[in-house]
Amino acid sequence: MKKFMNEPGNLLIESINGFAAAHADIISFDVSKRFVRRKSLVPGKVGLVSGGGAGHEPMHLGFVGRGMLDAACIGRIFTSPTPDQIVAAAQAVDAGSGLLFIVKNYDGDRMNFQMAGEMSGLAIDTAIVSDEAVQTSPEDKSGRRGLAGTLVLEKILGAAAERKLGLKTLLELADRVGSATRSMGVALTSCTLPEVGRPTFDIGEGEMELGVGIHGEPGRKRVAMRRADEIAEEVVRAVAGDMVFKGNALVLVNGFGGTPLIELYLMYNAFTAALTRHGFNPVRRLVGNFVTSLDMAGCSLTVSALDDELLGLWDDPVHTAALRWNA
Amino acid sequence: MKKFMNEPGNLLIESINGFAAAHADIISFDVSKRFVRRKSLVPGKVGLVSGGGAGHEPMHLGFVGRGMLDAACIGRIFTSPTPDQIVAAAQAVDAGSGLLFIVKNYDGDRMNFQMAGEMSGLAIDTAIVSDEAVQTSPEDKSGRRGLAGTLVLEKILGAAAERKLGLKTLLELADRVGSATRSMGVALTSCTLPEVGRPTFDIGEGEMELGVGIHGEPGRKRVAMRRADEIAEEVVRAVAGDMVFKGNALVLVNGFGGTPLIELYLMYNAFTAALTRHGFNPVRRLVGNFVTSLDMAGCSLTVSALDDELLGLWDDPVHTAALRWNA
Repeated sequence: MKKFMNEPGNLLIESINGFAAAHADIISFDVSKRFVRRKSLVPGKVGLVSGGGAGHEPMHLGFVGRGMLDAACIGRIFTSPTPDQIVAAAQAVDAGSGLLFIVKNYDGDRMNFQMAGEMSGLAIDTAIVSDEAVQTSPEDKSGRRGLAGTLVLEKILGAAAERKLGLKTLLELADRVGSATRSMGVALTSCTLPEVGRPTFDIGEGEMELGVGIHGEPGRKRVAMRRADEIAEEVVRAVAGDMVFKGNALVLVNGFGGTPLIELYLMYNAFTAALTRHGFNPVRRLVGNFVTSLDMAGCSLTVSALDDELLGLWDDPVHTAALRWNA
Repeated sequence: MKKFMNEPGNLLIESINGFAAAHADIISFDVSKRFVRRKSLVPGKVGLVSGGGAGHEPMHLGFVGRGMLDAACIGRIFTSPTPDQIVAAAQAVDAGSGLLFIVKNYDGDRMNFQMAGEMSGLAIDTAIVSDEAVQTSPEDKSGRRGLAGTLVLEKILGAAAERKLGLKTLLELADRVGSATRSMGVALTSCTLPEVGRPTFDIGEGEMELGVGIHGEPGRKRVAMRRADEIAEEVVRAVAGDMVFKGNALVLVNGFGGTPLIELYLMYNAFTAALTRHGFNPVRRLVGNFVTSLDMAGCSLTVSALDDELLGLWDDPVHTAALRWNA
């Protein structure tokens, strides 16, 4: 394993310090409670708080700013933030109009955000992100994990909160976005945790993992390495088969950290051809490394079949470290 | 080698097709002559044309759009575009106020852009990018290569052209930016050409390359793998030792394609600490994968000691696939 770092145990804090210094115009970093918050709050706006384990950069800290999150709590790599971190973040961005937690569907995250909500004494609702497309048997209890669809939900709810919509409306929007959004990931390599120093799982030169999560865990299925068009067709078939709506769609091709843009754009090309065959019309798109798994090579497809109102919220101004448009 | 692709020989064209479909609001792609051009020209503006071998995505095609390039010619991977491609691009974006070629300092690129200029019969000047920091003996004829400083020059000249400044002023600005800008790169791995299928150079688990170019060529020096702070100090010392100006600086930490943001932000942290010790004050920054070498793990530092006028041009609106602010 070769990584740019000093002590493996300090990789994360030194990285966040770099991030905070680079984006001091947008965010500030609470070192002791390890959360990033928007520099100035908007009175009368619902506060949006998300977070999770680190290792997915730029998610979530790169999504804090105008038109998206108010705060992001940063756990250790692939480990949920603790309730006291979350309480501190919630208190810091409470503008008196309620708070919404956006939590990816993992046991640790759900438990800690729930405990934080109870401890805080604040008016908090929670939206769970569970965008993973699954075609498993009913006995499979692992459920739908939160993947790169998190970005879509955080962008759209962030825009709605910026428009001063209330907590109840935000929860309704979260339901609509959630039921319209599905993701599936493919890994070509494992990632390597800095403090472990060897790949999380072994994978051969001729193999790939289909249906991976974002924590370096193995996927749902190990298959022989395939051509891009075949990967795209299989992923789109799984995603499309798990979606209620078709038609106009936002398409997010997300890299896991170790895959360069030249390949991500090739996959965008392959995915959109397959999506068109399956009845989708890509009207918005995003291609890049947004929800990563450290240095893993691979990518995920997120399809979000959005109506005009949701597309309008997607187009609203956003100014964060990782996403910036119309602002 | 595992890459997302179909036939290795089609990786590039399928990737560009994906790029063109994803960014059809900003650019259009001439399939036969393989260049990307800005969708609508600005009358009375000098046309900026750049390009080079592919494999550096998002450079250059991601730098085409308002406030930056008018056209980018795309050669085969790590191979200069041909003169007829460049002529076609120049003709396509000639708005009658002259053209400026921005060319990285490689023999093939220089020769082909020069031939294109002669063939075209248009009023063309050329700015050469040669931002590599070198501390070699005077006998070393390899000169200064064009590295990620290309982004800085293309952004600043793009802003100046958008302000309708003339060709002569643009050339003067190019000189000023050029003499104020130095870069150095570090590679932890080689990259792999899709049609070759094995790494371009071998490098051990305990080694790294200092002073690499952007084409997967070995660097100036093979050394033992070091801590991030030591890498930063050595790179900054080399860059600072080769610069005339200090003080306020734009700092670009550029990933080579295989290094995730968590590490690039750590390096930003390490680089800025070293830069401060060496008399620089980072007033603008950019952290991400902009000038890549396919899937190479590594990064480069670019320091540009800009005066207020040049900083103002840097801050001007830009709206391209890879850079977007104030627009």
